[in-house]
Amino acid sequence: MSGSRFGKNFTVTTWGESHGDSIGCVVDGCPAGIRLDEQDIQADMKRRRPGGSPYSSSREEHDSVRILSGLFKGVTTGAPISMTVDNMDARSGDYTSIAHIYRPGHADYVYDKKYGARDYRGGGRASARETACRVMGGAVAKRFLDELGVGINAYALSIGTVSIDRSHLDMSQIAVNPFGMPDKTAYEKAVAQAAQATANGDSLGGVVECVITGLFPGVGEPVFDKLSAVLGQAVLSINAVKGVEFGAGFVAASMTGAVNNDAMFYDGGELKKRSNNAGGIYGGISDGSDITFRAAFKPAPSISLKQETITDDGHNTSVSIKGRHDPLIVPRAIVVVEAMAALALADMCLQSLLSNISTIKRIWGKYD
Amino acid sequence: MSGSRFGKNFTVTTWGESHGDSIGCVVDGCPAGIRLDEQDIQADMKRRRPGGSPYSSSREEHDSVRILSGLFKGVTTGAPISMTVDNMDARSGDYTSIAHIYRPGHADYVYDKKYGARDYRGGGRASARETACRVMGGAVAKRFLDELGVGINAYALSIGTVSIDRSHLDMSQIAVNPFGMPDKTAYEKAVAQAAQATANGDSLGGVVECVITGLFPGVGEPVFDKLSAVLGQAVLSINAVKGVEFGAGFVAASMTGAVNNDAMFYDGGELKKRSNNAGGIYGGISDGSDITFRAAFKPAPSISLKQETITDDGHNTSVSIKGRHDPLIVPRAIVVVEAMAALALADMCLQSLLSNISTIKRIWGKYD
Amino acid sequence: MSGSRFGKNFTVTTWGESHGDSIGCVVDGCPAGIRLDEQDIQADMKRRRPGGSPYSSSREEHDSVRILSGLFKGVTTGAPISMTVDNMDARSGDYTSIAHIYRPGHADYVYDKKYGARDYRGGGRASARETACRVMGGAVAKRFLDELGVGINAYALSIGTVSIDRSHLDMSQIAVNPFGMPDKTAYEKAVAQAAQATANGDSLGGVVECVITGLFPGVGEPVFDKLSAVLGQAVLSINAVKGVEFGAGFVAASMTGAVNNDAMFYDGGELKKRSNNAGGIYGGISDGSDITFRAAFKPAPSISLKQETITDDGHNTSVSIKGRHDPLIVPRAIVVVEAMAALALADMCLQSLLSNISTIKRIWGKYD
Amino acid sequence: MSGSRFGKNFTVTTWGESHGDSIGCVVDGCPAGIRLDEQDIQADMKRRRPGGSPYSSSREEHDSVRILSGLFKGVTTGAPISMTVDNMDARSGDYTSIAHIYRPGHADYVYDKKYGARDYRGGGRASARETACRVMGGAVAKRFLDELGVGINAYALSIGTVSIDRSHLDMSQIAVNPFGMPDKTAYEKAVAQAAQATANGDSLGGVVECVITGLFPGVGEPVFDKLSAVLGQAVLSINAVKGVEFGAGFVAASMTGAVNNDAMFYDGGELKKRSNNAGGIYGGISDGSDITFRAAFKPAPSISLKQETITDDGHNTSVSIKGRHDPLIVPRAIVVVEAMAALALADMCLQSLLSNISTIKRIWGKYD
Repeated sequence: MSGSRFGKNFTVTTWGESHGDSIGCVVDGCPAGIRLDEQDIQADMKRRRPGGSPYSSSREEHDSVRILSGLFKGVTTGAPISMTVDNMDARSGDYTSIAHIYRPGHADYVYDKKYGARDYRGGGRASARETACRVMGGAVAKRFLDELGVGINAYALSIGTVSIDRSHLDMSQIAVNPFGMPDKTAYEKAVAQAAQATANGDSLGGVVECVITGLFPGVGEPVFDKLSAVLGQAVLSINAVKGVEFGAGFVAASMTGAVNNDAMFYDGGELKKRSNNAGGIYGGISDGSDITFRAAFKPAPSISLKQETITDDGHNTSVSIKGRHDPLIVPRAIVVVEAMAALALADMCLQSLLSNISTIKRIWGKYD
Repeated sequence: MSGSRFGKNFTVTTWGESHGDSIGCVVDGCPAGIRLDEQDIQADMKRRRPGGSPYSSSREEHDSVRILSGLFKGVTTGAPISMTVDNMDARSGDYTSIAHIYRPGHADYVYDKKYGARDYRGGGRASARETACRVMGGAVAKRFLDELGVGINAYALSIGTVSIDRSHLDMSQIAVNPFGMPDKTAYEKAVAQAAQATANGDSLGGVVECVITGLFPGVGEPVFDKLSAVLGQAVLSINAVKGVEFGAGFVAASMTGAVNNDAMFYDGGELKKRSNNAGGIYGGISDGSDITFRAAFKPAPSISLKQETITDDGHNTSVSIKGRHDPLIVPRAIVVVEAMAALALADMCLQSLLSNISTIKRIWGKYD
Repeated sequence: MSGSRFGKNFTVTTWGESHGDSIGCVVDGCPAGIRLDEQDIQADMKRRRPGGSPYSSSREEHDSVRILSGLFKGVTTGAPISMTVDNMDARSGDYTSIAHIYRPGHADYVYDKKYGARDYRGGGRASARETACRVMGGAVAKRFLDELGVGINAYALSIGTVSIDRSHLDMSQIAVNPFGMPDKTAYEKAVAQAAQATANGDSLGGVVECVITGLFPGVGEPVFDKLSAVLGQAVLSINAVKGVEFGAGFVAASMTGAVNNDAMFYDGGELKKRSNNAGGIYGGISDGSDITFRAAFKPAPSISLKQETITDDGHNTSVSIKGRHDPLIVPRAIVVVEAMAALALADMCLQSLLSNISTIKRIWGKYD
Repeated sequence: MSGSRFGKNFTVTTWGESHGDSIGCVVDGCPAGIRLDEQDIQADMKRRRPGGSPYSSSREEHDSVRILSGLFKGVTTGAPISMTVDNMDARSGDYTSIAHIYRPGHADYVYDKKYGARDYRGGGRASARETACRVMGGAVAKRFLDELGVGINAYALSIGTVSIDRSHLDMSQIAVNPFGMPDKTAYEKAVAQAAQATANGDSLGGVVECVITGLFPGVGEPVFDKLSAVLGQAVLSINAVKGVEFGAGFVAASMTGAVNNDAMFYDGGELKKRSNNAGGIYGGISDGSDITFRAAFKPAPSISLKQETITDDGHNTSVSIKGRHDPLIVPRAIVVVEAMAALALADMCLQSLLSNISTIKRIWGKYD
């Protein structure tokens, strides 16, 4: 299970299980000289916290972040930044009833097969609780990107079968409604659908869209480490994500080249494009326009509706998941998408500085 | 540009430009003891070769693969496997007219920005010619996977706006029709649409679907190196891919949990599922059922239709791409998708062997 | 500063500064199914603790290890193992007097140049305190290696100018005398030399030798990841190590081939060698005999003797290091050498399992 | 055998066996914009070529390097640089007599154990022929370092039991005498010793010293990726190297702190040191003074003297190695040491550019 690290030069390693005493992460490779405090991280942790809406888990997670290393006088030193939060309200007792049942849509069965046993308390490493560590790491990456003028903003594009209407886009809504939907009408429909799903003991999925602004041209590496490929891995590694697409995405597959190609022109000396079907990425490299992508989240597999499944000793059975689970994961997942985008971008931005000798010579030997 | 390597234990490094004398790759980390000959690789190279259909590039690529190292008496030795093909028909002359024009939808502009200059002959590393190296490396990965009983099969799900009808699925069609579509009726419609696009000087995109069979449970690592995340990076790194989805993919986002969850049951001692919306992956780990995913290809950006664009010295202009280009890239991309899936899987299968101590002790010290 | 991780499949990431609240590490990639408890780690931490001899630092470090993740019912789950110890006795006040002085032989100057500033409290990441994290990680690696029957034992070969006499080798002395020297007479001479150095306000270096037993043939990868190269990086990364040599080491350079070559023969069916000048490694790969290497430690740079040096604003000055420092680092470094050897070996042992297809097929699909 | 790649951002992958048709390497991650031609590489290849002295292998290797990719108009493009040389004079016939004998001091036995079989023609990947690929890659790294003003110079410090006298150091001798010894008297004694060894059918080892000049402070990463650790791995990965030491090296272990510490002072505004026992590295990071290290080479194991050994089917036997082998490997190894030092440094120099935010902001967005 050596998959708990992401990144090459700007890296994060996460650790901890949903029902242990604490969880945390270590960011290694963050440049020195960046002002950082716990509030920068806490703000994003709050966005991830359950309880933001009546349709989120009722589990209490204060998630008070402690930074254990890597700062001196409030500024990064270049040393690893270790962060942790306690698991305040881990009721392991909730899980003993399912210790021998493989929950449908969960990783129970595959963990047992892979490791010969599993920590059945809350899903262990497969728990969405792990994403809190990504949010901590991502908040550090965002601070670094902020120094470069790069911004990352995600929101809910759809929840269940309710999609926003782009002609009614209202970005101010994102911070206002607890679902993070930039369309008040769609939000209200989604609330109704969520209420119905909750009443049914069922759950809803949705799509998160993310826009990255302020990136210069040249970020992303050719061939295997294309910006889209690295961002793609980052986002597909989030629990419950089943698909990712950039720019026009799957819709581009049914366009013709003449329609899909983004025509370029200079307008008063400034480069502009007639469209951004590529989502700001050509040949895997940023062109300086906005990067846009979408991630599809399946509905949370933990539902109280009775489901057909099996036991770990070879019998058929059924299960109804009790516990405190989210019927709606998209609202809390928005900041996780931002975090993974930030971690991928921080790493790729660093790497892009090494592309050509004239850039390198400009700073070589001029560190201080 | 250190992005030319893929993999951690089973790795491939590709090299070469579309208009150099040759291109190639080095596979490092392939286990010893596997029978391999050039025909294994040539067969897949032939599937990628242009000219398979009247709607592919008329460029002649014999693509006769030479294996330069890593074999002894026809069997892999554990040493790096270096492979190369010559570029037989590289007419650099075709490209001088566009040396100072940034083609829409291409990587010309971003390469210039990133590297300060670019090899404008055919797109350099951004050329689809580079995918020939992936096919060579992928063919080695397939041989390894074949030893483990793992199979990989991709085909065209849609071309332009024509999708196959799953109720008329006919897998025998894949090898028969030059578009690799498993539905004869859809194929015929796609031929008509391709003819129209060609006549217009335009191009078409499409969707490739891939099915992986024979995988045991336990392949894929938790958190960042989920099987879906690593496969996702692999596939998103292919030229022109703008999206990837697993199992039900984006459709899962609008399902409820009760519908999306894959119910499990034992049928005569054998584990079965009522559905495979997860595409065989839970928590990032294979469950032993088929892995399914889809990749969206944008239409090729090289079209002869006149397009608005800019020059590298700041002027607006228009361009009509002449050269020998594919109006239809999906048919040739099918084997590239298989290759990247094979490379990702070979690496993840190796890593999965290191998961638990009881497995490890079974082979420790028993190498020969 | 993304250099805080070691390993490829079995990895450790360390974090923390000498004068922060705590330090720790995360081991990722340890196989599941291994019994592990805090006492396994505590035993090695005790060997590293200052105060073992009157010539070690008087700083009090209880170093009570807490394992925060990766265990379930006392057995590794395959998840990252996060461990931490508190810094009990960090008197930051000791260091303000040298905040603007670059101590000779220390990393103060280079940290300032590299990062633009530094955490001057005790050397930050360059402090020997960081090696406590290596010992924690190494103890986990040792438990894994123990399952494979691999043992690692280090001891002091020399302290100051006193070397052991190999004809009087007494391994039982290692655990008995606080210097870890396997020769009582040499130990007594070293005590006298250490007393003199302490009285002078000076410090001593020394050489640590390490023997690895129970390794099967085949561990280590050809070319760049030779077992000697990876072990070498591991050991050279320890603070104060200025050289490493394997088998006959530098002495081999003055031998002839006929003398240096290790003749092999079968004795009653068992493979034996007339010598082990290679230290058990040929072409970078273990041959099944003992691996032997030595690491040279420079004397600790922190001495109370007055030394010529500079300030961070460009002046000449002199400094006499007060604080609580070790005049003798070798005794405490012995377990750090073992830890780094264990981490390197755990990683290389895992990788060696992927060498040939017949081994792989023996476990493929037989995980449970 | 995934050990054929070195480096993280500036990387080299080597391939090829001693008796295949060709060997080569791929450099990935070299910045764009560097003038490079085949003569840059050929010059170093000539230094490695056998036949430079009468005591080197008589095997003919023209080693005419071809650069297959990564250049446009004589300048690096940022794309992978693939290079190859043909094996002109591979007489496989020489080796059939030893197909079933494990040569003492060679990797024959361990390859068989690791891979289940081996390419016995000349040692396969364990052959010193592989180092030609390192020299090609190293020559590219040197060109990059040359742009930064960094120089790398190695020479023979000792051959057999003959060491240079540092009080008679004459650097002009390095290029003049075929042994690369900077002391004419020592060279002449070494010639005599080499003649004797050759007459005896025996071989000699030696020590190579390397000096790196022009490095700025701040190169090298703390903890595991210390400059000494990464250089150490690089050098220990060279065939026949059994030890490496930096600055005063093993001698430092018997110094006291007061003697070993390098006193610093300003002399007319310029930073100077009274000594350089650290070899220019403190806490793993360069201080701007010369980096010095030494590598110990064991004598070549291939000797015509009769040696005791075993067969691959379990019998005792003796062997006398015929073939064309070097009684003296140090002269040809000098440029290999430089190559590995250059590859390690190129990678660490790139990484050092990412250390602090003020440096990064100076170039962010100013690529062209």
